Amino acid sequence: MTASHPYSGALAEALDRAGNLLCVGIDPVLERLPSELAAGEPGEALERFGLGVVEAVTGVVGVVKPQSACFERFGSAGYRAMERVIGAARAAGRVVILDAKRGDIGSTAAHYAAGAAGRGAQAITVNAYMGRSAVEPFLDAGLGVHVLVRTSNPDSDEIQLERLESGGTLGQRMARLVHDLGGASGRVGAVVGATKDAAELAALRVLMSEAPVLVPGYGAQGGDLGAIAALRREGARSPGTAGVIVNASRSVLYPPAGVRDEPGSWIAGIAERARAHADAIGVLGG
Amino acid sequence: MTASHPYSGALAEALDRAGNLLCVGIDPVLERLPSELAAGEPGEALERFGLGVVEAVTGVVGVVKPQSACFERFGSAGYRAMERVIGAARAAGRVVILDAKRGDIGSTAAHYAAGAAGRGAQAITVNAYMGRSAVEPFLDAGLGVHVLVRTSNPDSDEIQLERLESGGTLGQRMARLVHDLGGASGRVGAVVGATKDAAELAALRVLMSEAPVLVPGYGAQGGDLGAIAALRREGARSPGTAGVIVNASRSVLYPPAGVRDEPGSWIAGIAERARAHADAIGVLGG
Repeated sequence: MTASHPYSGALAEALDRAGNLLCVGIDPVLERLPSELAAGEPGEALERFGLGVVEAVTGVVGVVKPQSACFERFGSAGYRAMERVIGAARAAGRVVILDAKRGDIGSTAAHYAAGAAGRGAQAITVNAYMGRSAVEPFLDAGLGVHVLVRTSNPDSDEIQLERLESGGTLGQRMARLVHDLGGASGRVGAVVGATKDAAELAALRVLMSEAPVLVPGYGAQGGDLGAIAALRREGARSPGTAGVIVNASRSVLYPPAGVRDEPGSWIAGIAERARAHADAIGVLGG
Repeated sequence: MTASHPYSGALAEALDRAGNLLCVGIDPVLERLPSELAAGEPGEALERFGLGVVEAVTGVVGVVKPQSACFERFGSAGYRAMERVIGAARAAGRVVILDAKRGDIGSTAAHYAAGAAGRGAQAITVNAYMGRSAVEPFLDAGLGVHVLVRTSNPDSDEIQLERLESGGTLGQRMARLVHDLGGASGRVGAVVGATKDAAELAALRVLMSEAPVLVPGYGAQGGDLGAIAALRREGARSPGTAGVIVNASRSVLYPPAGVRDEPGSWIAGIAERARAHADAIGVLGG
Protein backbone atom coordinates (compact mmCIF):
# COMPACT_ATOMS: atom_id res chain seq x y z
CA MET A 1 0.00 0.00 0.00
CA THR A 2 1.71 3.13 -1.17
CA ALA A 3 0.35 6.59 -0.52
CA SER A 4 -0.04 7.16 -4.26
CA HIS A 5 -3.72 6.23 -4.34
CA PRO A 6 -6.26 8.02 -2.14
CA TYR A 7 -7.65 4.77 -0.73
CA SER A 8 -4.39 2.96 -0.07
CA GLY A 9 -2.92 6.03 1.59
CA ALA A 10 -5.96 6.62 3.81
CA LEU A 11 -6.16 2.94 4.71
CA ALA A 12 -2.48 2.67 5.68
CA GLU A 13 -2.71 5.78 7.81
CA ALA A 14 -5.90 4.65 9.57
CA LEU A 15 -4.50 1.20 10.38
CA ASP A 16 -1.22 2.65 11.62
CA ARG A 17 -3.05 5.06 13.88
CA ALA A 18 -5.36 2.37 15.28
CA GLY A 19 -2.48 -0.05 15.76
CA ASN A 20 -4.60 -3.07 14.85
CA LEU A 21 -6.06 -4.67 11.73
CA LEU A 22 -9.69 -4.85 12.84
CA CYS A 23 -12.52 -3.51 10.72
CA VAL A 24 -15.97 -3.37 12.29
CA GLY A 25 -18.84 -4.27 9.99
CA ILE A 26 -21.98 -2.17 10.42
CA ASP A 27 -24.75 -4.71 9.81
CA PRO A 28 -27.87 -3.50 11.58
CA VAL A 29 -30.54 -6.20 11.84
CA LEU A 30 -33.78 -4.86 13.26
CA GLU A 31 -34.61 -7.98 15.24
CA ARG A 32 -31.30 -7.83 17.05
CA LEU A 33 -31.09 -4.12 17.85
CA PRO A 34 -31.46 -2.95 21.46
CA SER A 35 -35.19 -2.79 22.24
CA GLU A 36 -35.02 0.94 22.86
CA LEU A 37 -34.15 1.42 19.18
CA ALA A 38 -36.21 -1.27 17.53
CA ALA A 39 -39.47 0.31 18.69
CA GLY A 40 -39.20 3.24 16.24
CA GLU A 41 -39.33 3.52 12.45
CA PRO A 42 -36.88 1.03 10.88
CA GLY A 43 -34.90 3.72 9.06
CA GLU A 44 -34.52 5.74 12.23
CA ALA A 45 -33.59 2.66 14.25
CA LEU A 46 -30.89 1.71 11.74
CA GLU A 47 -29.50 5.21 11.74
CA ARG A 48 -29.36 5.50 15.52
CA PHE A 49 -27.72 2.11 15.78
CA GLY A 50 -25.18 2.89 13.07
CA LEU A 51 -24.29 6.20 14.67
CA GLY A 52 -23.85 4.40 18.00
CA VAL A 53 -21.52 1.88 16.38
CA VAL A 54 -19.41 4.68 14.91
CA GLU A 55 -19.23 6.35 18.32
CA ALA A 56 -18.33 3.06 20.01
CA VAL A 57 -15.53 2.06 17.65
CA THR A 58 -13.89 5.43 17.07
CA GLY A 59 -10.64 5.30 18.98
CA VAL A 60 -10.54 1.50 18.68
CA VAL A 61 -10.49 0.71 14.95
CA GLY A 62 -9.51 2.66 11.85
CA VAL A 63 -11.94 1.11 9.39
CA VAL A 64 -15.67 0.40 9.25
CA LYS A 65 -17.64 -1.57 6.68
CA PRO A 66 -21.35 -0.76 6.35
CA GLN A 67 -23.31 -3.68 4.88
CA SER A 68 -25.50 -2.15 2.20
CA ALA A 69 -28.01 -5.03 2.23
CA CYS A 70 -29.01 -4.40 5.84
CA PHE A 71 -29.95 -0.83 4.96
CA GLU A 72 -31.49 -1.56 1.55
CA ARG A 73 -33.85 -3.99 3.21
CA PHE A 74 -35.84 -0.91 4.23
CA GLY A 75 -35.73 0.84 0.86
CA SER A 76 -35.08 4.54 0.60
CA ALA A 77 -35.51 5.06 4.35
CA GLY A 78 -32.78 2.50 4.97
CA TYR A 79 -30.62 4.01 2.27
CA ARG A 80 -30.90 7.42 3.89
CA ALA A 81 -29.83 5.90 7.21
CA MET A 82 -26.79 4.41 5.46
CA GLU A 83 -25.86 7.78 3.98
CA ARG A 84 -25.93 9.34 7.42
CA VAL A 85 -23.94 6.56 9.04
CA ILE A 86 -21.27 6.80 6.34
CA GLY A 87 -21.19 10.57 6.82
CA ALA A 88 -20.73 10.17 10.58
CA ALA A 89 -17.96 7.61 10.11
CA ARG A 90 -16.07 9.92 7.78
CA ALA A 91 -16.58 12.86 10.13
CA ALA A 92 -15.06 10.69 12.86
CA GLY A 93 -12.03 10.04 10.66
CA ARG A 94 -12.78 6.38 9.94
CA VAL A 95 -12.05 4.80 6.57
CA VAL A 96 -15.30 3.52 5.03
CA ILE A 97 -15.45 0.39 2.88
CA LEU A 98 -18.98 -0.02 1.52
CA ASP A 99 -19.84 -3.70 1.42
CA ALA A 100 -22.16 -3.74 -1.57
CA LYS A 101 -20.63 -6.46 -3.77
CA ARG A 102 -21.69 -4.58 -6.87
CA GLY A 103 -20.94 -6.12 -10.22
CA ASP A 104 -21.96 -4.46 -13.45
CA ILE A 105 -20.13 -2.96 -16.38
CA GLY A 106 -19.28 0.24 -18.15
CA SER A 107 -21.71 3.08 -17.66
CA THR A 108 -23.80 1.03 -15.22
CA ALA A 109 -20.80 0.42 -12.98
CA ALA A 110 -19.97 4.12 -13.29
CA HIS A 111 -23.40 4.90 -11.81
CA TYR A 112 -22.76 2.57 -8.86
CA ALA A 113 -19.34 4.14 -8.40
CA ALA A 114 -20.70 7.69 -8.44
CA GLY A 115 -23.38 6.63 -5.98
CA ALA A 116 -20.89 5.10 -3.54
CA ALA A 117 -18.36 7.92 -3.83
CA GLY A 118 -21.15 10.49 -3.54
CA ARG A 119 -22.20 8.97 -0.22
CA GLY A 120 -18.65 9.21 1.14
CA ALA A 121 -17.41 5.63 0.74
CA GLN A 122 -13.66 5.37 0.05
CA ALA A 123 -13.74 1.76 -1.13
CA ILE A 124 -16.30 -0.81 -2.19
CA THR A 125 -16.54 -4.58 -2.53
CA VAL A 126 -16.95 -5.67 -6.16
CA ASN A 127 -17.86 -8.90 -7.95
CA ALA A 128 -15.78 -9.36 -11.11
CA TYR A 129 -17.66 -12.26 -12.73
CA MET A 130 -18.49 -9.87 -15.59
CA GLY A 131 -14.79 -9.12 -16.17
CA ARG A 132 -12.42 -6.25 -15.65
CA SER A 133 -14.91 -3.67 -16.93
CA ALA A 134 -16.87 -4.43 -13.75
CA VAL A 135 -13.89 -3.15 -11.73
CA GLU A 136 -12.32 -0.29 -13.67
CA PRO A 137 -15.17 2.27 -13.38
CA PHE A 138 -14.84 2.19 -9.60
CA LEU A 139 -11.12 2.94 -9.86
CA ASP A 140 -11.86 5.73 -12.33
CA ALA A 141 -14.17 7.26 -9.72
CA GLY A 142 -11.30 7.34 -7.22
CA LEU A 143 -12.58 4.47 -5.08
CA GLY A 144 -10.54 1.63 -3.70
CA VAL A 145 -11.89 -1.76 -4.70
CA HIS A 146 -11.95 -5.14 -2.96
CA VAL A 147 -12.70 -7.82 -5.55
CA LEU A 148 -14.37 -11.03 -4.35
CA VAL A 149 -11.70 -13.69 -4.70
CA ARG A 150 -12.58 -16.39 -2.17
CA THR A 151 -15.65 -15.99 -0.02
CA SER A 152 -16.16 -17.34 3.49
CA ASN A 153 -19.37 -19.34 2.92
CA PRO A 154 -18.94 -23.15 2.72
CA ASP A 155 -20.76 -23.51 -0.62
CA SER A 156 -18.48 -21.00 -2.35
CA ASP A 157 -16.21 -23.99 -2.98
CA GLU A 158 -18.58 -25.31 -5.63
CA ILE A 159 -17.76 -22.39 -7.95
CA GLN A 160 -14.54 -20.87 -6.63
CA LEU A 161 -12.61 -24.13 -6.43
CA GLU A 162 -13.45 -25.18 -9.99
CA ARG A 163 -10.12 -25.98 -11.59
CA LEU A 164 -9.30 -24.23 -14.85
CA GLU A 165 -7.58 -25.76 -17.86
CA SER A 166 -5.36 -22.67 -17.82
CA GLY A 167 -4.15 -23.65 -14.34
CA GLY A 168 -5.28 -23.19 -10.75
CA THR A 169 -8.74 -22.54 -9.41
CA LEU A 170 -11.28 -19.90 -10.34
CA GLY A 171 -10.54 -18.13 -7.05
CA GLN A 172 -6.87 -18.00 -8.02
CA ARG A 173 -7.88 -16.65 -11.42
CA MET A 174 -9.64 -13.77 -9.66
CA ALA A 175 -6.52 -13.18 -7.56
CA ARG A 176 -4.53 -12.86 -10.80
CA LEU A 177 -7.10 -10.36 -12.08
CA VAL A 178 -6.66 -8.34 -8.88
CA HIS A 179 -2.92 -8.28 -9.46
CA ASP A 180 -3.29 -7.41 -13.16
CA LEU A 181 -5.51 -4.45 -12.36
CA GLY A 182 -3.77 -3.08 -9.30
CA GLY A 183 -0.14 -4.08 -9.46
CA ALA A 184 1.81 -2.48 -6.63
CA SER A 185 -0.51 0.49 -6.25
CA GLY A 186 -2.66 -1.07 -3.54
CA ARG A 187 -5.77 0.43 -5.07
CA VAL A 188 -7.15 -2.97 -6.07
CA GLY A 189 -7.71 -5.23 -3.15
CA ALA A 190 -9.42 -8.53 -2.57
CA VAL A 191 -11.92 -10.25 -0.32
CA VAL A 192 -10.69 -13.58 1.05
CA GLY A 193 -12.67 -15.46 3.69
CA ALA A 194 -11.03 -16.36 6.99
CA THR A 195 -12.79 -19.72 7.00
CA LYS A 196 -10.57 -21.30 4.35
CA ASP A 197 -7.33 -23.07 5.25
CA ALA A 198 -3.98 -21.35 5.68
CA ALA A 199 -2.30 -23.07 2.73
CA GLU A 200 -5.00 -21.88 0.35
CA LEU A 201 -4.81 -18.33 1.73
CA ALA A 202 -1.02 -18.28 1.44
CA ALA A 203 -1.24 -19.40 -2.20
CA LEU A 204 -3.65 -16.56 -2.93
CA ARG A 205 -1.29 -14.03 -1.32
CA VAL A 206 1.52 -15.15 -3.64
CA LEU A 207 -0.66 -14.34 -6.66
CA MET A 208 -1.52 -10.82 -5.47
CA SER A 209 1.43 -9.85 -3.32
CA GLU A 210 0.57 -6.16 -2.99
CA ALA A 211 -3.22 -6.21 -2.69
CA PRO A 212 -4.93 -5.12 0.53
CA VAL A 213 -7.05 -8.09 1.55
CA LEU A 214 -10.32 -7.64 3.40
CA VAL A 215 -11.00 -10.77 5.44
CA PRO A 216 -14.57 -11.54 6.50
CA GLY A 217 -15.50 -14.63 8.43
CA TYR A 218 -13.65 -13.87 11.66
CA GLY A 219 -15.74 -13.92 14.81
CA ALA A 220 -19.31 -15.19 14.33
CA GLN A 221 -18.30 -17.29 11.29
CA GLY A 222 -15.47 -18.98 13.17
CA GLY A 223 -12.49 -17.96 11.03
CA ASP A 224 -9.06 -18.74 12.39
CA LEU A 225 -6.40 -16.08 13.15
CA GLY A 226 -3.59 -18.49 12.30
CA ALA A 227 -5.02 -18.93 8.80
CA ILE A 228 -5.52 -15.18 8.40
CA ALA A 229 -1.87 -14.55 9.30
CA ALA A 230 -0.98 -16.38 6.08
CA LEU A 231 -2.31 -13.32 4.23
CA ARG A 232 0.00 -10.89 6.00
CA ARG A 233 2.35 -9.30 3.52
CA GLU A 234 5.93 -10.45 3.89
CA GLY A 235 8.24 -7.97 5.59
CA ALA A 236 5.43 -5.59 6.56
CA ARG A 237 6.69 -3.16 9.18
CA SER A 238 3.45 -1.57 10.37
CA PRO A 239 -0.28 -2.30 10.44
CA GLY A 240 -0.64 -0.04 7.43
CA THR A 241 1.71 -2.15 5.35
CA ALA A 242 0.42 -5.55 6.55
CA GLY A 243 -2.04 -5.73 3.67
CA VAL A 244 -4.78 -7.34 5.76
CA ILE A 245 -7.97 -5.94 7.23
CA VAL A 246 -9.88 -8.37 9.43
CA ASN A 247 -13.60 -7.76 9.61
CA ALA A 248 -15.91 -8.69 12.45
CA SER A 249 -19.57 -7.73 12.39
CA ARG A 250 -22.11 -9.67 14.45
CA SER A 251 -19.62 -10.71 17.13
CA VAL A 252 -18.90 -7.03 17.82
CA LEU A 253 -22.35 -5.53 17.25
CA TYR A 254 -24.51 -7.86 19.28
CA PRO A 255 -24.40 -9.49 22.69
CA PRO A 256 -24.35 -13.30 22.75
CA ALA A 257 -27.30 -15.11 21.12
CA GLY A 258 -30.38 -15.07 23.28
CA VAL A 259 -29.45 -11.77 24.92
CA ARG A 260 -31.07 -8.74 23.37
CA ASP A 261 -30.51 -6.02 25.92
CA GLU A 262 -27.18 -6.23 27.65
CA PRO A 263 -26.62 -4.75 31.09
CA GLY A 264 -25.44 -1.16 30.83
CA SER A 265 -25.19 0.91 27.67
CA TRP A 266 -25.29 -0.94 24.34
CA ILE A 267 -22.72 1.50 22.97
CA ALA A 268 -20.34 0.60 25.80
CA GLY A 269 -20.98 -3.08 25.03
CA ILE A 270 -19.99 -2.63 21.40
CA ALA A 271 -16.89 -0.65 22.38
CA GLU A 272 -15.85 -3.38 24.78
CA ARG A 273 -16.28 -6.19 22.26
CA ALA A 274 -14.48 -4.15 19.58
CA ARG A 275 -11.57 -3.61 21.97
CA ALA A 276 -11.41 -7.31 22.83
CA HIS A 277 -11.39 -8.27 19.13
CA ALA A 278 -8.80 -5.60 18.32
CA ASP A 279 -6.53 -6.87 21.08
CA ALA A 280 -6.93 -10.47 19.94
CA ILE A 281 -6.18 -9.64 16.31
CA GLY A 282 -3.55 -6.98 16.91
CA VAL A 283 -1.28 -6.92 13.90
CA LEU A 284 -1.39 -10.71 13.42
CA GLY A 285 1.95 -11.29 15.03
CA GLY A 286 3.75 -8.81 12.78
CA MET B 1 -42.56 -21.76 -17.30
CA THR B 2 -45.40 -23.31 -15.40
CA ALA B 3 -47.87 -21.32 -13.36
CA SER B 4 -46.64 -23.05 -10.20
CA HIS B 5 -44.27 -20.25 -9.22
CA PRO B 6 -45.53 -16.67 -8.79
CA TYR B 7 -42.87 -15.21 -11.08
CA SER B 8 -43.03 -17.74 -13.89
CA GLY B 9 -46.80 -17.58 -13.94
CA ALA B 10 -46.90 -13.77 -13.99
CA LEU B 11 -44.20 -13.62 -16.64
CA ALA B 12 -45.90 -16.08 -18.96
CA GLU B 13 -49.19 -14.27 -18.65
CA ALA B 14 -47.63 -10.84 -19.27
CA LEU B 15 -45.76 -12.00 -22.37
CA ASP B 16 -48.81 -13.75 -23.77
CA ARG B 17 -50.92 -10.65 -23.28
CA ALA B 18 -48.32 -8.37 -24.89
CA GLY B 19 -47.78 -10.79 -27.77
CA ASN B 20 -44.06 -10.01 -27.94
CA LEU B 21 -40.88 -10.78 -26.03
CA LEU B 22 -39.66 -7.24 -25.46
CA CYS B 23 -38.71 -5.94 -22.02
CA VAL B 24 -37.98 -2.25 -21.69
CA GLY B 25 -35.14 -1.32 -19.39
CA ILE B 26 -35.69 1.76 -17.25
CA ASP B 27 -32.20 3.31 -17.12
CA PRO B 28 -32.60 7.03 -16.45
CA VAL B 29 -29.39 8.95 -17.09
CA LEU B 30 -29.68 12.58 -16.05
CA GLU B 31 -27.59 13.94 -18.91
CA ARG B 32 -29.85 12.29 -21.47
CA LEU B 33 -33.28 13.10 -20.03
CA PRO B 34 -35.52 15.58 -21.82
CA SER B 35 -34.41 19.09 -20.81
CA GLU B 36 -37.76 19.81 -19.21
CA LEU B 37 -37.03 17.08 -16.61
CA ALA B 38 -33.32 17.48 -16.11
CA ALA B 39 -33.71 20.99 -14.75
CA GLY B 40 -35.21 19.81 -11.43
CA GLU B 41 -33.85 17.82 -8.49
CA PRO B 42 -32.23 14.60 -9.76
CA GLY B 43 -34.51 12.33 -7.72
CA GLU B 44 -37.58 14.09 -9.03
CA ALA B 45 -36.28 14.02 -12.60
CA LEU B 46 -35.63 10.28 -12.41
CA GLU B 47 -39.06 9.66 -10.99
CA ARG B 48 -40.87 11.72 -13.61
CA PHE B 49 -38.91 10.05 -16.38
CA GLY B 50 -39.52 6.56 -15.00
CA LEU B 51 -43.24 7.21 -14.65
CA GLY B 52 -43.29 8.48 -18.22
CA VAL B 53 -41.57 5.32 -19.43
CA VAL B 54 -44.14 3.17 -17.64
CA GLU B 55 -46.94 5.17 -19.22
CA ALA B 56 -45.33 4.93 -22.67
CA VAL B 57 -44.75 1.20 -22.67
CA THR B 58 -47.94 0.01 -20.99
CA GLY B 59 -49.97 -1.58 -23.75
CA VAL B 60 -46.81 -2.36 -25.72
CA VAL B 61 -44.69 -4.62 -23.50
CA GLY B 62 -45.43 -6.90 -20.58
CA VAL B 63 -42.16 -6.53 -18.69
CA VAL B 64 -39.95 -3.68 -17.49
CA LYS B 65 -36.49 -3.79 -15.96
CA PRO B 66 -35.45 -0.86 -13.77
CA GLN B 67 -31.67 -0.50 -13.56
CA SER B 68 -30.90 -0.02 -9.88
CA ALA B 69 -27.52 1.63 -10.54
CA CYS B 70 -29.07 4.58 -12.36
CA PHE B 71 -31.22 5.34 -9.34
CA GLU B 72 -28.61 4.56 -6.67
CA ARG B 73 -26.32 7.08 -8.30
CA PHE B 74 -28.39 9.71 -6.49
CA GLY B 75 -28.50 7.96 -3.13
CA SER B 76 -31.69 7.81 -1.11
CA ALA B 77 -33.44 10.35 -3.33
CA GLY B 78 -32.76 8.12 -6.32
CA TYR B 79 -33.78 5.05 -4.39
CA ARG B 80 -37.10 6.67 -3.53
CA ALA B 81 -37.65 7.45 -7.21
CA MET B 82 -37.02 3.79 -8.02
CA GLU B 83 -39.54 2.67 -5.42
CA ARG B 84 -42.19 4.89 -6.99
CA VAL B 85 -41.40 3.79 -10.53
CA ILE B 86 -41.64 0.14 -9.53
CA GLY B 87 -44.93 0.87 -7.78
CA ALA B 88 -46.31 2.56 -10.88
CA ALA B 89 -45.20 -0.31 -13.11
CA ARG B 90 -46.93 -2.84 -10.88
CA ALA B 91 -50.06 -0.69 -10.72
CA ALA B 92 -50.03 -0.68 -14.53
CA GLY B 93 -49.90 -4.49 -14.52
CA ARG B 94 -46.31 -4.78 -15.77
CA VAL B 95 -43.98 -7.51 -14.53
CA VAL B 96 -40.95 -5.92 -12.84
CA ILE B 97 -37.47 -7.44 -13.00
CA LEU B 98 -35.11 -5.41 -10.82
CA ASP B 99 -31.71 -5.27 -12.48
CA ALA B 100 -29.50 -5.10 -9.41
CA LYS B 101 -27.04 -7.97 -9.97
CA ARG B 102 -26.89 -8.59 -6.26
CA GLY B 103 -24.60 -11.33 -5.03
CA ASP B 104 -24.22 -12.07 -1.36
CA ILE B 105 -25.03 -14.99 0.86
CA GLY B 106 -27.27 -16.25 3.62
CA SER B 107 -28.75 -13.60 5.84
CA THR B 108 -27.20 -10.80 3.77
CA ALA B 109 -28.87 -12.06 0.60
CA ALA B 110 -32.09 -12.38 2.58
CA HIS B 111 -31.89 -8.65 3.35
CA TYR B 112 -31.44 -7.83 -0.34
CA ALA B 113 -34.35 -10.13 -1.18
CA ALA B 114 -36.65 -8.55 1.40
CA GLY B 115 -35.65 -5.13 0.11
CA ALA B 116 -36.43 -6.00 -3.52
CA ALA B 117 -39.67 -7.82 -2.73
CA GLY B 118 -40.71 -5.03 -0.36
CA ARG B 119 -40.36 -2.51 -3.18
CA GLY B 120 -42.58 -4.59 -5.47
CA ALA B 121 -40.05 -6.34 -7.69
CA GLN B 122 -41.13 -9.81 -8.86
CA ALA B 123 -37.69 -10.92 -10.03
CA ILE B 124 -34.10 -9.79 -9.68
CA THR B 125 -30.80 -10.32 -11.47
CA VAL B 126 -28.28 -12.19 -9.31
CA ASN B 127 -24.55 -12.92 -9.47
CA ALA B 128 -23.78 -16.46 -8.30
CA TYR B 129 -19.98 -16.25 -8.02
CA MET B 130 -20.42 -16.86 -4.28
CA GLY B 131 -22.35 -20.09 -4.92
CA ARG B 132 -25.90 -21.33 -4.62
CA SER B 133 -26.43 -19.67 -1.25
CA ALA B 134 -26.27 -16.38 -3.17
CA VAL B 135 -29.38 -17.48 -5.10
CA GLU B 136 -31.58 -19.43 -2.72
CA PRO B 137 -32.57 -16.61 -0.33
CA PHE B 138 -34.18 -14.74 -3.24
CA LEU B 139 -36.23 -17.81 -4.12
CA ASP B 140 -37.21 -18.22 -0.47
CA ALA B 141 -38.51 -14.64 -0.55
CA GLY B 142 -40.81 -15.55 -3.47
CA LEU B 143 -38.79 -13.72 -6.12
CA GLY B 144 -37.90 -14.99 -9.53
CA VAL B 145 -34.18 -14.94 -10.19
CA HIS B 146 -32.10 -14.37 -13.32
CA VAL B 147 -28.57 -15.61 -12.67
CA LEU B 148 -25.74 -14.01 -14.68
CA VAL B 149 -24.57 -16.76 -17.02
CA ARG B 150 -23.03 -14.99 -20.00
CA THR B 151 -22.92 -11.22 -20.10
CA SER B 152 -23.02 -9.02 -23.17
CA ASN B 153 -19.81 -7.01 -22.60
CA PRO B 154 -16.82 -8.01 -24.77
CA ASP B 155 -14.43 -8.48 -21.84
CA SER B 156 -16.73 -10.95 -20.09
CA ASP B 157 -14.99 -13.57 -22.25
CA GLU B 158 -11.86 -13.33 -20.13
CA ILE B 159 -13.64 -14.89 -17.14
CA GLN B 160 -16.76 -16.54 -18.53
CA LEU B 161 -15.01 -18.46 -21.31
CA GLU B 162 -12.37 -19.95 -18.99
CA ARG B 163 -12.47 -23.68 -19.64
CA LEU B 164 -12.92 -25.93 -16.63
CA GLU B 165 -11.21 -29.24 -16.02
CA SER B 166 -14.66 -30.59 -15.19
CA GLY B 167 -15.75 -29.73 -18.75
CA GLY B 168 -17.11 -26.73 -20.62
CA THR B 169 -16.72 -23.07 -19.81
CA LEU B 170 -17.41 -21.16 -16.62
CA GLY B 171 -20.49 -19.66 -18.30
CA GLN B 172 -21.75 -23.16 -19.01
CA ARG B 173 -21.06 -24.09 -15.38
CA MET B 174 -23.37 -21.24 -14.31
CA ALA B 175 -26.00 -22.52 -16.75
CA ARG B 176 -25.80 -25.92 -15.03
CA LEU B 177 -26.23 -24.20 -11.66
CA VAL B 178 -29.35 -22.47 -13.01
CA HIS B 179 -30.74 -25.83 -14.06
CA ASP B 180 -29.79 -27.50 -10.76
CA LEU B 181 -31.58 -24.83 -8.76
CA GLY B 182 -34.64 -24.33 -10.89
CA GLY B 183 -35.31 -27.51 -12.83
CA ALA B 184 -38.58 -27.29 -14.71
CA SER B 185 -40.18 -24.75 -12.40
CA GLY B 186 -39.10 -21.69 -14.35
CA ARG B 187 -38.38 -19.82 -11.16
CA VAL B 188 -34.64 -19.74 -11.79
CA GLY B 189 -33.74 -17.95 -14.96
CA ALA B 190 -30.57 -16.68 -16.56
CA VAL B 191 -29.03 -13.63 -18.14
CA VAL B 192 -27.40 -14.32 -21.50
CA GLY B 193 -26.11 -11.48 -23.67
CA ALA B 194 -27.38 -11.08 -27.21
CA THR B 195 -23.92 -10.12 -28.41
CA LYS B 196 -22.51 -13.65 -28.28
CA ASP B 197 -22.80 -16.01 -31.25
CA ALA B 198 -25.78 -18.26 -31.93
CA ALA B 199 -23.88 -21.53 -31.46
CA GLU B 200 -22.77 -20.51 -27.99
CA LEU B 201 -26.28 -19.39 -27.04
CA ALA B 202 -27.79 -22.63 -28.33
CA ALA B 203 -25.33 -24.67 -26.24
CA LEU B 204 -26.33 -22.71 -23.14
CA ARG B 205 -30.02 -23.37 -23.83
CA VAL B 206 -29.37 -27.12 -23.91
CA LEU B 207 -27.89 -26.95 -20.42
CA MET B 208 -30.85 -25.07 -18.93
CA SER B 209 -33.75 -26.11 -21.12
CA GLU B 210 -36.54 -24.70 -18.94
CA ALA B 211 -35.01 -21.47 -17.66
CA PRO B 212 -36.47 -18.12 -18.66
CA VAL B 213 -33.58 -16.22 -20.22
CA LEU B 214 -33.31 -12.46 -19.99
CA VAL B 215 -31.31 -11.19 -22.95
CA PRO B 216 -29.61 -7.81 -22.70
CA GLY B 217 -27.50 -6.38 -25.48
CA TYR B 218 -30.19 -5.97 -28.12
CA GLY B 219 -30.52 -2.47 -29.57
CA ALA B 220 -27.81 -0.05 -28.51
CA GLN B 221 -25.31 -2.86 -27.91
CA GLY B 222 -25.90 -4.35 -31.36
CA GLY B 223 -27.12 -7.85 -30.44
CA ASP B 224 -28.48 -9.97 -33.24
CA LEU B 225 -32.05 -11.32 -33.36
CA GLY B 226 -30.93 -14.44 -35.24
CA ALA B 227 -28.57 -15.32 -32.41
CA ILE B 228 -31.23 -14.60 -29.79
CA ALA B 229 -33.64 -16.96 -31.55
CA ALA B 230 -31.23 -19.77 -30.62
CA LEU B 231 -32.41 -19.31 -27.03
CA ARG B 232 -36.08 -19.84 -27.85
CA ARG B 233 -37.36 -22.94 -26.12
CA GLU B 234 -38.08 -25.78 -28.50
CA GLY B 235 -41.75 -26.34 -29.26
CA ALA B 236 -42.88 -23.21 -27.44
CA ARG B 237 -46.45 -22.40 -28.46
CA SER B 238 -46.86 -18.87 -27.14
CA PRO B 239 -44.74 -15.89 -26.09
CA GLY B 240 -45.18 -16.97 -22.49
CA THR B 241 -43.62 -20.35 -23.15
CA ALA B 242 -40.80 -19.11 -25.41
CA GLY B 243 -38.47 -18.77 -22.44
CA VAL B 244 -36.84 -15.58 -23.75
CA ILE B 245 -37.22 -11.95 -22.73
CA VAL B 246 -35.33 -9.50 -24.92
CA ASN B 247 -34.33 -6.31 -23.19
CA ALA B 248 -33.75 -2.94 -24.83
CA SER B 249 -32.98 0.13 -22.78
CA ARG B 250 -31.17 3.08 -24.34
CA SER B 251 -32.45 2.42 -27.85
CA VAL B 252 -36.01 2.75 -26.56
CA LEU B 253 -35.56 5.44 -23.91
CA TYR B 254 -33.58 8.02 -25.84
CA PRO B 255 -33.68 9.63 -29.24
CA PRO B 256 -30.63 9.09 -31.48
CA ALA B 257 -27.26 10.29 -30.14
CA GLY B 258 -26.88 14.04 -30.44
CA VAL B 259 -30.61 14.67 -30.11
CA ARG B 260 -31.76 15.52 -26.62
CA ASP B 261 -35.24 16.90 -27.14
CA GLU B 262 -37.15 15.14 -29.85
CA PRO B 263 -39.98 16.83 -31.72
CA GLY B 264 -43.29 16.25 -29.97
CA SER B 265 -43.80 14.53 -26.62
CA TRP B 266 -40.92 12.47 -25.25
CA ILE B 267 -43.42 9.95 -23.91
CA ALA B 268 -44.83 9.49 -27.40
CA GLY B 269 -41.27 9.07 -28.68
CA ILE B 270 -40.59 6.27 -26.21
CA ALA B 271 -43.89 4.59 -27.04
CA GLU B 272 -43.08 4.72 -30.73
CA ARG B 273 -39.59 3.25 -30.33
CA ALA B 274 -40.93 0.56 -27.98
CA ARG B 275 -43.55 -0.39 -30.57
CA ALA B 276 -40.96 -0.54 -33.35
CA HIS B 277 -38.71 -2.80 -31.24
CA ALA B 278 -41.63 -4.97 -30.19
CA ASP B 279 -42.67 -5.44 -33.81
CA ALA B 280 -39.11 -6.27 -34.86
CA ILE B 281 -38.65 -8.82 -32.08
CA GLY B 282 -42.15 -10.23 -32.06
CA VAL B 283 -41.94 -13.78 -30.79
CA LEU B 284 -38.63 -14.49 -32.54
CA GLY B 285 -40.22 -16.37 -35.37
CA GLY B 286 -42.06 -18.78 -33.06
